[in-house]
Amino acid sequence: MSMKVVVVGAVAAGPKAAVRIKRVDPSAQIVLIDQDSLISYGGCGIPYYVSGDVADENDLRKTSFHMLRDEFFFEKAKGVTTMTSTRVLSIDRTNKSVLVEKLKTGEQEEISYDKLLLATGSEPIVIPIPGVELDGVFTISDLHKAIAIKERIAKGLVGKAVVIGGGAIGIEMAEALKDLWGVETSIVEFQNQLLPNLVDWEMSEILVRHLRDNDVEVFLSEGATEIISDGDGKACGVKTNNRTLDADLIILATGVKPRSSLASATGLHVSATGAVVVNERMQTSDPDIYAAGDCVEITHLVSGQKFFAPLGSLANKQGRVAGDNIAGVPSTFKGGVGSFIMKAFDMSIGSVGLTFHGAKNSGYDADISLTSPIDRAHFFPTQAIACFLLIFDRRTRRVLGMQGVGPMGDGILARINGAAPLLGEGATIEEFANIELAYAPPFSAAIDSVNAAAYVAENLCDDRLRKINMPEYLKFIDDLDTEPDWVMLDVRHEKQAQPFIDKFGPQRWLSLPYEQVRDRYQELPQDKTLIIICNAGSRSYEIQRFLDHVGYENSLVLAGGINVIKRMNVDWLPE
Amino acid sequence: MSMKVVVVGAVAAGPKAAVRIKRVDPSAQIVLIDQDSLISYGGCGIPYYVSGDVADENDLRKTSFHMLRDEFFFEKAKGVTTMTSTRVLSIDRTNKSVLVEKLKTGEQEEISYDKLLLATGSEPIVIPIPGVELDGVFTISDLHKAIAIKERIAKGLVGKAVVIGGGAIGIEMAEALKDLWGVETSIVEFQNQLLPNLVDWEMSEILVRHLRDNDVEVFLSEGATEIISDGDGKACGVKTNNRTLDADLIILATGVKPRSSLASATGLHVSATGAVVVNERMQTSDPDIYAAGDCVEITHLVSGQKFFAPLGSLANKQGRVAGDNIAGVPSTFKGGVGSFIMKAFDMSIGSVGLTFHGAKNSGYDADISLTSPIDRAHFFPTQAIACFLLIFDRRTRRVLGMQGVGPMGDGILARINGAAPLLGEGATIEEFANIELAYAPPFSAAIDSVNAAAYVAENLCDDRLRKINMPEYLKFIDDLDTEPDWVMLDVRHEKQAQPFIDKFGPQRWLSLPYEQVRDRYQELPQDKTLIIICNAGSRSYEIQRFLDHVGYENSLVLAGGINVIKRMNVDWLPE
Repeated sequence: MSMKVVVVGAVAAGPKAAVRIKRVDPSAQIVLIDQDSLISYGGCGIPYYVSGDVADENDLRKTSFHMLRDEFFFEKAKGVTTMTSTRVLSIDRTNKSVLVEKLKTGEQEEISYDKLLLATGSEPIVIPIPGVELDGVFTISDLHKAIAIKERIAKGLVGKAVVIGGGAIGIEMAEALKDLWGVETSIVEFQNQLLPNLVDWEMSEILVRHLRDNDVEVFLSEGATEIISDGDGKACGVKTNNRTLDADLIILATGVKPRSSLASATGLHVSATGAVVVNERMQTSDPDIYAAGDCVEITHLVSGQKFFAPLGSLANKQGRVAGDNIAGVPSTFKGGVGSFIMKAFDMSIGSVGLTFHGAKNSGYDADISLTSPIDRAHFFPTQAIACFLLIFDRRTRRVLGMQGVGPMGDGILARINGAAPLLGEGATIEEFANIELAYAPPFSAAIDSVNAAAYVAENLCDDRLRKINMPEYLKFIDDLDTEPDWVMLDVRHEKQAQPFIDKFGPQRWLSLPYEQVRDRYQELPQDKTLIIICNAGSRSYEIQRFLDHVGYENSLVLAGGINVIKRMNVDWLPE
Repeated sequence: MSMKVVVVGAVAAGPKAAVRIKRVDPSAQIVLIDQDSLISYGGCGIPYYVSGDVADENDLRKTSFHMLRDEFFFEKAKGVTTMTSTRVLSIDRTNKSVLVEKLKTGEQEEISYDKLLLATGSEPIVIPIPGVELDGVFTISDLHKAIAIKERIAKGLVGKAVVIGGGAIGIEMAEALKDLWGVETSIVEFQNQLLPNLVDWEMSEILVRHLRDNDVEVFLSEGATEIISDGDGKACGVKTNNRTLDADLIILATGVKPRSSLASATGLHVSATGAVVVNERMQTSDPDIYAAGDCVEITHLVSGQKFFAPLGSLANKQGRVAGDNIAGVPSTFKGGVGSFIMKAFDMSIGSVGLTFHGAKNSGYDADISLTSPIDRAHFFPTQAIACFLLIFDRRTRRVLGMQGVGPMGDGILARINGAAPLLGEGATIEEFANIELAYAPPFSAAIDSVNAAAYVAENLCDDRLRKINMPEYLKFIDDLDTEPDWVMLDVRHEKQAQPFIDKFGPQRWLSLPYEQVRDRYQELPQDKTLIIICNAGSRSYEIQRFLDHVGYENSLVLAGGINVIKRMNVDWLPE
């Protein structure tokens, strides 16, 4: 007799599992159920639909060969019985059946299963402030909301928007609103940086600068405290602890949480954070019930801890693994490393693994290398600077994470992809130093950015390089009196140093070009701490090595160099 | 007493090692020697210099901060004594010294060493045909030759060019000549494909088509037999076994070989192919003599065999490792996987690991998955099709290699980089199926091309997918009578199938759209072999699974689908 499978949830993991089961075991009888009328759509594409890059909402619902993935498609093309606008009310684990209600008719039905898959996804976190229920306040939780937002904009009803939450979806929505529609847009984020938990502060500051350059206002360390009503049930603004912002449209993008009420109601193991607990075969605490996608937590392959990674790419992988196991092909999903990439106007920003702060909090002896190399052969016309942060454990020399930001294109992706596979294998900085990424002048430097970042990390671990990190340096620049003994040694060309000398004075900002240091180092003060500065940090490192050798041992290299500062959100740079 | 190091060769590995030693051990006394007057230049940039993308030859010699890397730079900035136009005549291993001759004066000098590094690079293979010594025939072996070529073109002396050799340098040179200068250019390659040993025939055919679309003629399976003289010492054409091509400029790009005469003359272990043999510490058979860069052979981390990989990126890595060991920091270079990427007009093509034919020759039970996915979310406006070949061993399920070709940009690089790190670790197709490459709609599909390729490989290994490979299929199309029982089952839209039906007749080309097969499969002939065809192969696979289930078991899926054929060098496609 053929196996009966019920799949609850039909956006990413659910449909993937359903069709995979059908291909592995064509005799399986599969029922795919979703409470929504729209299923199997590219939810990650919503910002691009709102922006107009994707013209029609149906484009998010189509296959690559232009067929609409509706219930008829799943029935006809895939052989999967599909029930939309149908809610699963409860699971009877003893009798192995689910009770469903058809939302349009109220009709209830019991459907039996041999294997059950929960792919119930995630739901937006709605922060508990007054006014979130007002008209004009939207979460980005499904395609219906996206359609409603776009309709309002297209009708000319939106002049100003506030995005609450500086995560990926918030930033993508801000770009969508500003770039194509010209909506005056602000982002309000209660943490002191954008993309918290995905990148560290240095990277965020580069992104903040770029958003502001593109006329998106960013208010950090500001929590939204209230959504203001126009007295008529419509939202008209957002209050933060610092200001009031007018808005016709308010996007709540304060994160998502696993949708696991069905799992917990039926007594399955659910984590403290509300995620369904599964093993590597994607089985819940009931071996006949599987779960996959945004509703589960997975193992972080760097930290070994559980984490919540709601991403379409992981949902598909988990759906396929769950499908294999249900269909009788043993298969495992071991966990993830949090590979992340996003577009923000003309910039791309990516990360993988742990952030520096995440690593510190997780108990690692974490340190960082901040680099700002040229992203291809420096003589190649399309070359540009990218900035990278490599996070590593000084004790074990293991690489814990990497972040990169650079011009829009696939260059940052290429480095994140190069780092991700080994990260979950416990690779050390020595292994990263020799990762063999592909090289030709139109694509990369002979020493790829990933290798170069590892070189710096190695020099740090071996105490061949002493640095000052960017936050500490910028704090010092804010108030020079805090470190009266610090003197900048600018080893760039005199012309590049001169505006800094003019601004900071010749006592604080010394110019001694790189190639002259070996001849002229005796001119340097020996009773000061020299902060060695160049564009990318590599010349500074070389000079530090030489100065140590000749007995001038009191120096620190400014990690990342002027290249990084120039791209950050700072206002004190001369010129 | 400080250590004395002599480094022979000052292009990539040599300078890298010299400056690394100096940074790790600033007290070291280093002498860097090269027979050329120009050193430390970006040799891989030569085609871009010839094309004019790089305006001045000195741009290839400069650091990223615009300093010329000449002997004075190495002396002043790096503290490395540098002797250019100086040849090392012999090595006295007993007394640990080298005898050098200054080429300009004939003056000889003995220089002692504690450690010696050979970074003598590679030299072009000059095929033994008449006329290679004529004026107008160039190898791409150093910057002087590049300058001479560009001078001739700039003076308008070159109307037609022939490139002998269809490897990476030959193709890059052909693009340089054709694209900017409009030189009528042909490539002559005696093998039946371009980029032999780097990609397989399918990928080469896509590249051939693209070169022809860009007006570069490509003659495969044609060996150059003679370079024709104008009777006045100047080359004026190339004869092959098939034709005679006029040419004012002839580029010999028939590969390079290690430059190892110095090593062999001093009795160091040199391989049968002429490469210096080193261990993982980059030591030669004399532990005080190291070698690095294009003159050595390295371990292929997939096959375990030795191979010759003359690439600037590897030379730099090896130079750093050699430098570390010389300076007293134990360090290893374990080998390579042959990561490769190149630009060809508006296309990029990359590979890593073994080719299918290389793997077969190496004894593997090799098979391939050929896929043609969309390179980012299919609803994202900049999406385009890329083609991938994954090579794997059916016996161990190990991935052996990957190749990709797609639009110019860093998209193919991002996949090669994602595949390379695990390839050397013996990763299986199951591991490739779950590699977590970064995802967002502007960058990739939710199921990345690398994962998708592994899915297909898994289905092949598990005998869930039976395919026909492209070479066999194209041979059949060439002569349909060879397989009278083969009938095409086109599961694309009827409109897409119609021109094929018109061309091949309704007996040979059946149209039954994907979504109708479950309802109408009984219309299909049961006594024929069905060749199932769609754009990318995935619908075909799904249909095969269904047909097998309902007892129509005589089918093969056309791997890669029409997407691949459309991009290949074929002339029979309707419309």
